[in-house]
Amino acid sequence: MQRVHHIGIAVENLETAVATYQAFLDDVEIEYEEVPSQKVKVAVIPLGDSRLEFLQPTSPDSPIAGFIEKRGQGIQHICIEVNDINEALKKLEEKGYKLIDKEPREGAMGMKIAFVHPKSTGGVLLELSQKK
Amino acid sequence: MQRVHHIGIAVENLETAVATYQAFLDDVEIEYEEVPSQKVKVAVIPLGDSRLEFLQPTSPDSPIAGFIEKRGQGIQHICIEVNDINEALKKLEEKGYKLIDKEPREGAMGMKIAFVHPKSTGGVLLELSQKK
Repeated sequence: MQRVHHIGIAVENLETAVATYQAFLDDVEIEYEEVPSQKVKVAVIPLGDSRLEFLQPTSPDSPIAGFIEKRGQGIQHICIEVNDINEALKKLEEKGYKLIDKEPREGAMGMKIAFVHPKSTGGVLLELSQKK
Repeated sequence: MQRVHHIGIAVENLETAVATYQAFLDDVEIEYEEVPSQKVKVAVIPLGDSRLEFLQPTSPDSPIAGFIEKRGQGIQHICIEVNDINEALKKLEEKGYKLIDKEPREGAMGMKIAFVHPKSTGGVLLELSQKK
């Protein structure tokens, strides 16, 4: 299934950011997790067939801390789930688009993921993903 | 139905931006429209129950031209469809969040829309919408 898998939002404080969305969304159940490899704490708000993922750095050398320092809080990336990530990367490479990951690597929950460079996507840091 | 209604992406050139997504998405049908009031041309890629909306300024005094000049191309806003936009705005205002529109106004296709200030949302320009 092709869909917007999630929107990644870099924030200084998870609770503060999430409270706004809790204030106006109905029946929201928030999930929290920690991703030590990226040095972030994550709060997830499921929304339709997509989700908002709030990312708070747990260390000053987290990539998300660097993003906030440079650009301020805000949307850091979007992730699109595709049917076949190897095929998607092959097509992008053939057409000369700039890939951050030429081969998929393992992401959360065993998903295959790969990033495409913002230069090729209209300024969007784009993550592709495929279910395990 | 609560969902991410769309992700608004400010770009210099619609065709260039959209071509990347066409390269790897299956069975994509792109819709084009023009929104003279916002001085933008729009290309829409439906994706699951959400959509990507690419926005190209048609004039240097378009708000999107200003965004690109200041921040470069990239995600400009996200829009969340809510069940009751008046209720959502009321709840946000009661809790002291900063609203750009205190009352809903009419958006595309007769939808009711209102914007919430990035200061209250973790740096995200947030549009709320409700179906006609």
